[in-house]
Amino acid sequence: MTHTPPEHAGPGSNRRPALSWWGGNADRGDSVRLEAFSDGVLAIAITLLILDVRVEQQPGQSLAAALGHAGPEIGAYAASFLQIGIMWANHHALFRIVARVDQLLLLANLLLLGFVAFLPLPTRLVAQHTSGADAHTAMLLYGATLTGCALAFNLIWRHTVRRGLLADGVDPEFRRDVDIRYLAGLGGYLAATLLALIQPWLTLAVTALLALLFLLGPSPRAASVTDPAAP
Amino acid sequence: MTHTPPEHAGPGSNRRPALSWWGGNADRGDSVRLEAFSDGVLAIAITLLILDVRVEQQPGQSLAAALGHAGPEIGAYAASFLQIGIMWANHHALFRIVARVDQLLLLANLLLLGFVAFLPLPTRLVAQHTSGADAHTAMLLYGATLTGCALAFNLIWRHTVRRGLLADGVDPEFRRDVDIRYLAGLGGYLAATLLALIQPWLTLAVTALLALLFLLGPSPRAASVTDPAAP
Amino acid sequence: MTHTPPEHAGPGSNRRPALSWWGGNADRGDSVRLEAFSDGVLAIAITLLILDVRVEQQPGQSLAAALGHAGPEIGAYAASFLQIGIMWANHHALFRIVARVDQLLLLANLLLLGFVAFLPLPTRLVAQHTSGADAHTAMLLYGATLTGCALAFNLIWRHTVRRGLLADGVDPEFRRDVDIRYLAGLGGYLAATLLALIQPWLTLAVTALLALLFLLGPSPRAASVTDPAAP
Amino acid sequence: MTHTPPEHAGPGSNRRPALSWWGGNADRGDSVRLEAFSDGVLAIAITLLILDVRVEQQPGQSLAAALGHAGPEIGAYAASFLQIGIMWANHHALFRIVARVDQLLLLANLLLLGFVAFLPLPTRLVAQHTSGADAHTAMLLYGATLTGCALAFNLIWRHTVRRGLLADGVDPEFRRDVDIRYLAGLGGYLAATLLALIQPWLTLAVTALLALLFLLGPSPRAASVTDPAAP
Repeated sequence: MTHTPPEHAGPGSNRRPALSWWGGNADRGDSVRLEAFSDGVLAIAITLLILDVRVEQQPGQSLAAALGHAGPEIGAYAASFLQIGIMWANHHALFRIVARVDQLLLLANLLLLGFVAFLPLPTRLVAQHTSGADAHTAMLLYGATLTGCALAFNLIWRHTVRRGLLADGVDPEFRRDVDIRYLAGLGGYLAATLLALIQPWLTLAVTALLALLFLLGPSPRAASVTDPAAP
Repeated sequence: MTHTPPEHAGPGSNRRPALSWWGGNADRGDSVRLEAFSDGVLAIAITLLILDVRVEQQPGQSLAAALGHAGPEIGAYAASFLQIGIMWANHHALFRIVARVDQLLLLANLLLLGFVAFLPLPTRLVAQHTSGADAHTAMLLYGATLTGCALAFNLIWRHTVRRGLLADGVDPEFRRDVDIRYLAGLGGYLAATLLALIQPWLTLAVTALLALLFLLGPSPRAASVTDPAAP
Repeated sequence: MTHTPPEHAGPGSNRRPALSWWGGNADRGDSVRLEAFSDGVLAIAITLLILDVRVEQQPGQSLAAALGHAGPEIGAYAASFLQIGIMWANHHALFRIVARVDQLLLLANLLLLGFVAFLPLPTRLVAQHTSGADAHTAMLLYGATLTGCALAFNLIWRHTVRRGLLADGVDPEFRRDVDIRYLAGLGGYLAATLLALIQPWLTLAVTALLALLFLLGPSPRAASVTDPAAP
Repeated sequence: MTHTPPEHAGPGSNRRPALSWWGGNADRGDSVRLEAFSDGVLAIAITLLILDVRVEQQPGQSLAAALGHAGPEIGAYAASFLQIGIMWANHHALFRIVARVDQLLLLANLLLLGFVAFLPLPTRLVAQHTSGADAHTAMLLYGATLTGCALAFNLIWRHTVRRGLLADGVDPEFRRDVDIRYLAGLGGYLAATLLALIQPWLTLAVTALLALLFLLGPSPRAASVTDPAAP
């Protein structure tokens, strides 16, 4: 146990002088179980998406033709799969530098999970409504749900920084990079949502691009932190 | 391995003189896998809730109007999401101080998981029945299910204390705080359930408030325990 | 790393002279991930059960009356929840003493998971068919699925013992106790299945009793093993 | 912490001089959480398969007769269960020798999970269309999905080798064995898919045989690696 938060009596000691109920001042352990629960919700939400892809076959229609018409369903499936998958990677990257968890962080994380678990509903609506006014409505809801996720990520990050829940040794430059990254993400998703008012499919395309940009684009400057996961 | 229950021959030894089948006298390991299984059930139950949110669109009705009428479905989704999320946090907080697991604890935990996994059913009924006698019935079942969860938490806690399954070093004051907390929770959920006889939506509001109060309100006094998770 | 299987060059070494692809001669690590995957499947199967509990309300029927008729659905839900929950506990108890995993063990475990994941189907049929010849058929399938689980547990246990995959230091008496336990379980579930030919509900009652007896009844004699999970 | 990648200042140090956001140069930790997320998706996909097995009972038909006609559904369930189960084992075997994770590996793994999570859809179609032109179409989609999985495994493996993400000490012979194994798997699944043009059920039989051959057939030569999971 090389990671020794100030609450610890000293290295080698395994007494925690004050174990609060919610683990507010506890060490790495809480973040690990919060990540495990979040991983579970994200893994289930991403896998449930397929339950809503239904290939409707008209009487006398061949399966090949029906599959051809299932394009929007499969496209929406792929887009939401990408969003949740990259959100998982982002969640993982973020919580690697969170050393402590308090009640409001639990609540902000629950808000994020609530938006992610809600995503199958707008995904289904987007696949069902591909033209007319309803296509605009469906895509607005889809974009708003992703914007809600971006907002929750910002709340988690701001709360973590303000309450000193970050791992020791995260550089100020790194923090600023993450600040910019998260605010830019929020702005980008909000703008992509508003595009639904003009052309619904633009929302799907731009949010997919944003997610890929998040994963493959520039990362925050490398941080020099005390490894919170070191045994 | 700094946590050494009396059954161990001594520090540094990795012989367990008596490994019972169900892990009655085993150390931290069992609680960890019980938590992992419980995390899984809670994560799945919380994510399945969305499957029951159906936006029913009448012929000639716009999607926007249909979404407007989905308010009760989405409200019930949000309420149950909050309940299960905070129950997860509470389960996690509780099992951090459980050092040993026996058969009856497994059974009591299974009872809790059974009530949680059952919650999607009353949630669906509450969303479908928003007026008349059926609204009372649905909300009674919803409240009763949450009261069942509170009851199972009490059974788990009482059994843990009586059989000496708690981690070493939990203060008597801390125990008393948890006693009060859990009994008050049971009473609160029971009272909220009975409110369904008068005004169904009160049950939903009061149970949501109770959950938030549990998370954000006063915690049990800080405990001074031997960290059971220290490597 | 205090657990040193013979393949290891010596304590303190972290070279594995031969890491086979499937982990046949690898140490604890493989069993841990096999347990994690199995936990996942069991947790999902147990939570999906509720999706099949449908409260069918006839026109003009009150929700209270409809719930009264949902008795068989809720009873079948509770029975299968108990079966899977206790199977999880049993799986956990068994794999605590498995030190090594090979390909056939993976396959036997997959067979077990396949029967468990199949259980929601006969559970639904049992709830739908409560009288007449179909009740016998549904309960025969339900009992046969549980008997399949018991068979898979026996295959896992026999293979583990024969191929020397057990943790070191498990006493011969302990092995004999588990032998008897597992064969008795298989016989018991088989007999309970055949009862479905006479009186379907007896199968549900006897299998529930068997599961509770497994959890709360006599355990195998305490074993003295080298703790495979010790860090 | 005996596993010391070059980025580490030295053994005993717990400073990571450069922690990139996505963990590109981080050690074992990332691979562990990637495996946990993948385990979750695979466990859910395998368990959701049963939701699509529906026993349709015609008016006046006995349940026994209806079950007799559910043969294709149950066969398709068993085949896909086997595929996902063995893919899980293969995924686990592969990631035991991956020491580092970068962004493209995350994306390639997401592609694999996307194909696996998609499998319930073609499985359902295969069970519903057992004759005529639609049987060919359904089986082509089923085979193509499995071929997509094989392709994603190849992408993951190639990327891991090229970017030096493998654990230290994996022999060149071992790498060549895995190269051949993965390319042969891709070719085999592709050929099995094309068989659907001639005789649909051959695709199901040959892909099941390929999976069993993967699990029970010859493994890559034993590798001598530094155990990345050693504590």
